[in-house]
Amino acid sequence: MNTACIIGGGVIGGGWAARFLLNGWRVQVFDPDPEAPRKIGEVLDNARYALPMLYDVALPAEGGLVFCETLEEALNGADWVQESVPERLELKQKVYAQIEATGTDALIGSSTSGFKPSELQEGMEKPDNVFVTHPFNPVYLLPLVELVPSDKTAPSAVEGAKDILRSIGMHPLHIRKEIDAHIADRLLEAVWREGLWLINDGIATTEEIDDAIRYGFGLRWGQMGLFETYRIAGGEAGMKHFIAQFGPALEWPWTKLMDVPDLTDDLVNKIADQSDAQSGQHSIRALERMRDNNLVAMMRGLKTQNAAAGALIKTHEAMINKPDATDFCKPLKTISRTIPADWVDYNGHMNESRYGQVFSDAADTVLDMLGAGPDYVATGKSYFTVNIDINFVLETHVADQIVVESQILLLDGKKLKLFHRMQSASGALLATGEQFLLHVDLTTRKSCPPEDALLSEMVKKFEHQKALPQPD
Amino acid sequence: MNTACIIGGGVIGGGWAARFLLNGWRVQVFDPDPEAPRKIGEVLDNARYALPMLYDVALPAEGGLVFCETLEEALNGADWVQESVPERLELKQKVYAQIEATGTDALIGSSTSGFKPSELQEGMEKPDNVFVTHPFNPVYLLPLVELVPSDKTAPSAVEGAKDILRSIGMHPLHIRKEIDAHIADRLLEAVWREGLWLINDGIATTEEIDDAIRYGFGLRWGQMGLFETYRIAGGEAGMKHFIAQFGPALEWPWTKLMDVPDLTDDLVNKIADQSDAQSGQHSIRALERMRDNNLVAMMRGLKTQNAAAGALIKTHEAMINKPDATDFCKPLKTISRTIPADWVDYNGHMNESRYGQVFSDAADTVLDMLGAGPDYVATGKSYFTVNIDINFVLETHVADQIVVESQILLLDGKKLKLFHRMQSASGALLATGEQFLLHVDLTTRKSCPPEDALLSEMVKKFEHQKALPQPD
Repeated sequence: MNTACIIGGGVIGGGWAARFLLNGWRVQVFDPDPEAPRKIGEVLDNARYALPMLYDVALPAEGGLVFCETLEEALNGADWVQESVPERLELKQKVYAQIEATGTDALIGSSTSGFKPSELQEGMEKPDNVFVTHPFNPVYLLPLVELVPSDKTAPSAVEGAKDILRSIGMHPLHIRKEIDAHIADRLLEAVWREGLWLINDGIATTEEIDDAIRYGFGLRWGQMGLFETYRIAGGEAGMKHFIAQFGPALEWPWTKLMDVPDLTDDLVNKIADQSDAQSGQHSIRALERMRDNNLVAMMRGLKTQNAAAGALIKTHEAMINKPDATDFCKPLKTISRTIPADWVDYNGHMNESRYGQVFSDAADTVLDMLGAGPDYVATGKSYFTVNIDINFVLETHVADQIVVESQILLLDGKKLKLFHRMQSASGALLATGEQFLLHVDLTTRKSCPPEDALLSEMVKKFEHQKALPQPD
Repeated sequence: MNTACIIGGGVIGGGWAARFLLNGWRVQVFDPDPEAPRKIGEVLDNARYALPMLYDVALPAEGGLVFCETLEEALNGADWVQESVPERLELKQKVYAQIEATGTDALIGSSTSGFKPSELQEGMEKPDNVFVTHPFNPVYLLPLVELVPSDKTAPSAVEGAKDILRSIGMHPLHIRKEIDAHIADRLLEAVWREGLWLINDGIATTEEIDDAIRYGFGLRWGQMGLFETYRIAGGEAGMKHFIAQFGPALEWPWTKLMDVPDLTDDLVNKIADQSDAQSGQHSIRALERMRDNNLVAMMRGLKTQNAAAGALIKTHEAMINKPDATDFCKPLKTISRTIPADWVDYNGHMNESRYGQVFSDAADTVLDMLGAGPDYVATGKSYFTVNIDINFVLETHVADQIVVESQILLLDGKKLKLFHRMQSASGALLATGEQFLLHVDLTTRKSCPPEDALLSEMVKKFEHQKALPQPD
């Protein structure tokens, strides 16, 4: 088993501890703060909840967490040392001297957000294994690590660090030229400063600035970055065209922060060439489709949490969805929708489980029509599906439009049986589902009959459905 | 029916046209560019593909798109005018004079990214209905619109604009004090400049900068913004504590862009108060959980596209998932995983369709064990599910660990029948699924027997499974 030594156990050190521990490493923590076990424990609780959710397989068994009394004990047998002590250079250098004194041959990464690795290495006799590995909060979920060696760092240490970081699910971004604050924090600094000005000058509040980010470019940046996004904006004319269009705005007095590089031909060509190397294998049309599929998938993810852009879509959906009065003398029109990009599997068609999702949604519509919708659920009663039998007739593809007609086959006390027919826009039968539900009390989680008043109303509606032809 | 007049039909004007059209509006376009119909057509193709995917209900029927010969014709009967002509003030002012001359009483929004509404209104006799509505590309997917009135804009026009923007699924961010470039583009500018410096100075390439964004803070910013994220980082000590910690870094020479507001007590209190108003109703623990659920849902969305952070997780998952050699004399261990946050529905338990997804994944594992996994699919053959019958026994909740044991009930030519048992970590039976699959040719999409060599290997394995006790 591999062993990681965690020096400094705050939110960042705790996040590293969680990454290693949940990937099967033994973790030895040294932090003189008596609160360290509590602080790391809180981060670990979060990490144990969230990190395994990213995966469709189980993570390795945890490797064991030990709080050590001394630095030497924590370093014993370590393959990796992660230093996350406070951002004071003299303190960090003292820790490096102590590490070196133990003679460890572990790889040694610093979580510093500001210092250069050469500054950390000052005074070390054997600085070969020291580099910066700067992570991002929450460390147990976000994959980025800025991996910054100095010219005193051994290339083999850098390669070894990359392998280890990848093995715990992180992305080492190798920064080839050391610089204060590396890359990401410089970009963050720039936004933070501009944000402070906007608040200082009374232009916007913290919430307005956050909304300006998360409903717009924040979503773009979760999937492509700045330059690939602008490459698309430039269209087929390319990155040079984009800079020619957008570049002059740099000369305008928009932001408070005014030192601007000259857009020489050399710089424009450099950007265009790098952008070609990054994305040139895809046409703009293909990039647009990738971007849009990513945005759809992310926003649909946020919709499951009723959060950020996903909450906006749910609100808008409620405005759109104004069904006509239900005619129980006909099959019930329960679903009319498009197949989204995130429902398609490796066979190039809608995954079988999504047929089940469509039928589950159809059942929700039937319950709503019967008077047992969200308002009824809020009273502490609901219907749970006990069995579903799905026949898959035809494949369904991304962006296809589908409709579902549903029929009530049985309504008897707590029992409810539905039959669903999924059809294409042209009327072809795609699948059928026969679904058996039981009425439940949400407090006891046990089945029980619906309230008499509701039941008698439902039975009246069912009488009309009974008269319809029954499926085979 | 409502009518929108779109003046200027590039990527932005086309995006607006798509938003209105797909929300049931009639759209009248004026753009003297003979290429405008092609350009708008391309944007519309993208929008018709992607926008409906955000919704679980059908969008309204399209309201009709008309390209007009004259501005007057395009303005005829318009409730909303969206101006997206090139960013030249004198050109925009000329367009506003022409609009005013028609006597229209429509609301008039400008897509300008840089100009203030008062600049657009100069020279107008009746500027009441004019404001900035600055959207973000792709306009048909991203909800943000910066809505900026001047003091000449009627408050009723602003409220009317908010209602209309919400009705087409957008989020109007009301900017109360007009300023060059509004809010979001000032933040973007700051990052863009810093990015240019990093490239200019040879620190990073376009791809490295993009990775620094999309694997780290870009994901954070897709769901919370800058200030709510930092509020969490500050922990229970709060926003003042965070600024006290992080603020001094502003004095360090990190970025090239150096004009910094003084962190006076007034400014610190202003930020802390605004942050309390924004997020103070949630504890830091609750915010952490919301953030983590959002990140999980977004990253799982990206995983369906094998894109950005989702692609990293898939790569890591393949490193983790090293199954033991399969023992066909026992039930097959096909699934071991955690229930993620995005699988839970309004009843507070795993949605029924996700049982189907787990069994679909279990079938993939069985096929892999039988030698009919991804490599075989790449040869143009696969298995499709024809029927599944699922019994739901117990509820399953977020973060629960589950395992699935699968058994081959039938293997006969092109026919394959599987039985799956889903169990909790403590061994309780959660659900069973009986699944019937057919072998198919992926070219013809028709069923056919597997290759003889594969079939005879599979039959040998099935002989062991046959000897196991059969489910009831």
